[in-house]
Amino acid sequence: MTAIADRAVVPAMNMARDREFCQSLFAKLREATGDGVGITRQSYGAGESLALDIIENAARQFGLQTERDLGANLVVTLPGSAPDLPYLACGSHLDSVPQGGNYDGGAGVIAGLAILAGLKQDGFTPQRTLKLFGLRGEESAWFGKAYMGSSALFGRLSPEDLASPQAATGRSLASCMRDVGADVERIARGEPLIDGTRIAAWVELHIEQGPVLVARKLPIAIVTGIRGNIRHRVVQCIGEAGHSGAVPRWLRRDAVFATAELITHLDRHWRTLLERGRDLVITSGIMGTDSSEHAIARIPGAVKFSFEARSQSQETLEAFYDLFVSECASIGEERGVEFVLDRRLQSAPATMDPVWVEKLRAAARHRGLPDEPIPSGAGHDAAVFANAGIPSAMIFVRNENGSHNPHEDMTIDDFMKGVAVMRDVLAEEAA
Amino acid sequence: MTAIADRAVVPAMNMARDREFCQSLFAKLREATGDGVGITRQSYGAGESLALDIIENAARQFGLQTERDLGANLVVTLPGSAPDLPYLACGSHLDSVPQGGNYDGGAGVIAGLAILAGLKQDGFTPQRTLKLFGLRGEESAWFGKAYMGSSALFGRLSPEDLASPQAATGRSLASCMRDVGADVERIARGEPLIDGTRIAAWVELHIEQGPVLVARKLPIAIVTGIRGNIRHRVVQCIGEAGHSGAVPRWLRRDAVFATAELITHLDRHWRTLLERGRDLVITSGIMGTDSSEHAIARIPGAVKFSFEARSQSQETLEAFYDLFVSECASIGEERGVEFVLDRRLQSAPATMDPVWVEKLRAAARHRGLPDEPIPSGAGHDAAVFANAGIPSAMIFVRNENGSHNPHEDMTIDDFMKGVAVMRDVLAEEAA
Repeated sequence: MTAIADRAVVPAMNMARDREFCQSLFAKLREATGDGVGITRQSYGAGESLALDIIENAARQFGLQTERDLGANLVVTLPGSAPDLPYLACGSHLDSVPQGGNYDGGAGVIAGLAILAGLKQDGFTPQRTLKLFGLRGEESAWFGKAYMGSSALFGRLSPEDLASPQAATGRSLASCMRDVGADVERIARGEPLIDGTRIAAWVELHIEQGPVLVARKLPIAIVTGIRGNIRHRVVQCIGEAGHSGAVPRWLRRDAVFATAELITHLDRHWRTLLERGRDLVITSGIMGTDSSEHAIARIPGAVKFSFEARSQSQETLEAFYDLFVSECASIGEERGVEFVLDRRLQSAPATMDPVWVEKLRAAARHRGLPDEPIPSGAGHDAAVFANAGIPSAMIFVRNENGSHNPHEDMTIDDFMKGVAVMRDVLAEEAA
Repeated sequence: MTAIADRAVVPAMNMARDREFCQSLFAKLREATGDGVGITRQSYGAGESLALDIIENAARQFGLQTERDLGANLVVTLPGSAPDLPYLACGSHLDSVPQGGNYDGGAGVIAGLAILAGLKQDGFTPQRTLKLFGLRGEESAWFGKAYMGSSALFGRLSPEDLASPQAATGRSLASCMRDVGADVERIARGEPLIDGTRIAAWVELHIEQGPVLVARKLPIAIVTGIRGNIRHRVVQCIGEAGHSGAVPRWLRRDAVFATAELITHLDRHWRTLLERGRDLVITSGIMGTDSSEHAIARIPGAVKFSFEARSQSQETLEAFYDLFVSECASIGEERGVEFVLDRRLQSAPATMDPVWVEKLRAAARHRGLPDEPIPSGAGHDAAVFANAGIPSAMIFVRNENGSHNPHEDMTIDDFMKGVAVMRDVLAEEAA
């Protein structure tokens, strides 16, 4: 490539300046979209729009180009000297769950802006254009559907998705998208709003929503993949009700004991698969006997429960699912109960690009930071970019108390470590 | 005993006549207290009173003495020639659950009346007086309290029991008892209404409320004891909620997996105790995650469930309860959850009198019937008589489809076998 000869020299990061910038921007977002308890930025609603405005205004103060794309997302651009080269994209989402936290989504957008604004201030002009996306509509809390903003970019919102009612107002996603300026007709036709072949890579920084980095004392980690899942909303275990004192064990068809045995067997298979190095988490988040007929002195004749398996590997998901179905059959036969499964729901795992994962890990090592590769259990917009064929990668930043609540707790020190690693890679790749 | 010299000769049973009498009486009860779906005889209410009237009228037609005792129960008497001897008592209860069956309780009263009326028709005058009790208020469905009628006889209703509201009307048990003529003031003082030392024995015939006799093809069986129980209405398993995708297994405190493991371990202990010949049944009839916060994609942070162990042996109950508490502690520690137990409730097992059990078994063998001894898992008025120090015994009659529903299914053939065994023993003992 002739471009190699023209590579710009990446200036050193001004950590103190960028840190102060990020802190003040987090404070602005928190102040503007606080709800008295936590943070509320409705997808395709007021709080989200306000957040986009705040980021856009900050970007303009540094002379960065800004625009809203056809999906009404914010796009901030640091133009490269070779605009024909595919650009590097970064960012995250600016919506939140109701009474959520300030960092889930917001951290990735502020990180991207700190990098673009810092490079601009330092007079750095890359060859490749750098773009920051402040995406809308990532949280499923409002319309039941996640990744709406990134899905719209790739023509991946279905008519059912667009008809989904907003949880509070009942207005359709299409109406709410139109309100904020999205080209709903084009989205409804399933047309991509951007040309994916023009994007060289997608890099997203996000707080970790689980407790792994805290438990393992890692300030940051590099994400290797985003787990997909297989779900059943409702599995019914149907046995036979009976007098709890009058039916001996050998004549019982107890739905609670059968379900407990099923869960315990699944737990055993899960441990075995983990010991073999597979990535897997299993959850039965909803479980209960039938309140219209259960009683302390009645053998439970029916139990309903939800089933969810998540893994970075589709093969592991399918293997575990086979074990689940097989256990349902054998325990059903042994205990005289039947497990009835509703429709199987699924979403595919997304693999982060190995080359980009290694770039981020190398940059972390270069800064003397741990370069631990870990899976993302939660879903992220990066999965949509990856499944659209764009090399994608993510940096997780340590965070206490999970996400989707006001108690998210990321330190600015950890955050700046993630920003530094992301900056090093983006600037070098763009130079 | 000088009485031996005066023993009357017990006439042979007129099976065809007694069978027809019982069938017609079952039909009358069914017709009078049917509710369109099943049978409804409210404890201390209209349906129950109607049933007492029907039995009393039938008894009078044969010249048997009838009265209502101070607890408003029906008492039918065949006077003996030696009235100073303690009398033999038999019977059961005449109330039912809402939309229940015709045989639960009613069968034991009709059996007793068929025996007294048959002996009277045959001109048999025993030495010992024979008394039939048509008890009220055995079912807990109406006031939450079981065995009210028999408990009142022995001064065993507490002020809390008497204040219990009727499930449909909210009126107190005391008010409803007073309505049907019970001496509520005396009952409230805890005074016995009858002299237990005057009762030589209590014999109760009842349908089996479980499926054992059907499964083992036994028309009748002799009850060896009535199971007591230990209960917790609510056990809470408290773990920690979290994102179902973002928390790996080693950092989870999943209340559903912990509870499933607990139940599975209890099941294992249960099987071991059964293999050692212990009598035990275990039930967790109510179980559920918290509907205000559970979700498919959320690790369940809390589960509530009920605990019940029943056994004929207090020692077995205590041994199993120790295992339960110990499993709660060890699983709690291993999985980072806590099991919080509410107040322990219990009722003592009742042992049937071994001498009377053997009399009934011998009578069964004498008639060429199986003499299988089996425990009663359900509670019965016989437990109250036994725990008041009266030698007590029970005959179970085979019955399909359990009890407390309109589908109870006892055949008249099986019933008459039970009646015959009961008659043989009562008449011989009274003679």
